[in-house]
Amino acid sequence: MKIAVLGTGIVGTTLGSKLVEAGNAVMMGSRSANNPKATDWVESAGEGASRGTFADAAAFGEVVLNCTAGMASLEALELAARENLDGKILMDLANPLDFSQGMPPTLTVCNTDSLGEQIQRAFPRVKVVKVLNTLNAAVMVRPDLVPGDHEIFMSGDDAGAKSRVMELLGTWFGWKARDVIDLGGIQTCRGTEMMLPMWITLMGALGTPTFNLHVVKGGGAA
Amino acid sequence: MKIAVLGTGIVGTTLGSKLVEAGNAVMMGSRSANNPKATDWVESAGEGASRGTFADAAAFGEVVLNCTAGMASLEALELAARENLDGKILMDLANPLDFSQGMPPTLTVCNTDSLGEQIQRAFPRVKVVKVLNTLNAAVMVRPDLVPGDHEIFMSGDDAGAKSRVMELLGTWFGWKARDVIDLGGIQTCRGTEMMLPMWITLMGALGTPTFNLHVVKGGGAA
Repeated sequence: MKIAVLGTGIVGTTLGSKLVEAGNAVMMGSRSANNPKATDWVESAGEGASRGTFADAAAFGEVVLNCTAGMASLEALELAARENLDGKILMDLANPLDFSQGMPPTLTVCNTDSLGEQIQRAFPRVKVVKVLNTLNAAVMVRPDLVPGDHEIFMSGDDAGAKSRVMELLGTWFGWKARDVIDLGGIQTCRGTEMMLPMWITLMGALGTPTFNLHVVKGGGAA
Repeated sequence: MKIAVLGTGIVGTTLGSKLVEAGNAVMMGSRSANNPKATDWVESAGEGASRGTFADAAAFGEVVLNCTAGMASLEALELAARENLDGKILMDLANPLDFSQGMPPTLTVCNTDSLGEQIQRAFPRVKVVKVLNTLNAAVMVRPDLVPGDHEIFMSGDDAGAKSRVMELLGTWFGWKARDVIDLGGIQTCRGTEMMLPMWITLMGALGTPTFNLHVVKGGGAA
């Protein structure tokens, strides 16, 4: 299938390569059509990989993955252009992290709003599904890097789009349906975006970005 | 041992009862010495349970547990009085949640600061250890209510105090040392306090407050 990956960072290139490997046609979108990182990626990813502007990629993809840095996401999506996005599923993987003041980063929006909600409000005819924003890129595409049960979270207002995303995550990366917890409407992504400070702290405490969380439900133990 | 529990809510009464049951002398502190909830608790908890003002309790306890509502914690600790707290371990279980605008609650402080840090700054000679603020009261005192491995998190600037808290959590409630992840200094509690929106969302999605998180670390899988 034809997939747009917006963003040339570690998330975009990791997902893009995995999607090409699985036989998809992937266009990586960036601010300029001849972005050097996108050019390098096209070369390394091989047949099925292409590059273009944000608008080229958005027009190309049946599904669009927002892998831009969170602080730049709204602008990138404006450049991608409404007419190329409307009616499509936008998987939003971005987190609104501001590293400009050093570590730890802060969130540019949180608590009473979220990036996912901002995107959905700005693009009301796009089916925004927030997903995969709580783990490392390597684990996104290889859940088996973390042993046993562990989960990812999904937020979005369109039930059909969420079902489709759940299928795609299985087909593309091997996430089983029971590994994907549907939190509810797009507003619930406040919770996952606000997990980022904890994620970064845990990465430090554990000494590795290769980890994930398993939600363990209690029984009716007496 | 002599323990002060500040706060008469579900966290304070649940922990207080468990601590009395285990043979400790527990004084529940509240704004007024004759708080009806504290009176009820003393009656139900039985021998070893007593009540008093925040200051009475803080003076009584060798260790002090902050189980007040987060929005009221700083004021409660001022009432508990510096001279009763200085040099002691303060286990801070509170989260700065504001329910005044309905659900979901927002945090009154987050992102660039946290309640744990505010308390440590306001009481520099108190050994503040943020802990147990990421799970339901029933699970705090009965980790076995959630099956298998799952963890709690600890933040604080005093290494000795954190070791002691780890011991106490084992003795009091059965948390094993490997279940308690030391995140680092008190600043790291920004991460755990900011998990609360996710915790509340997950409670809704799972349909129960009886759950916890297991941090699953990846290996060097090829």
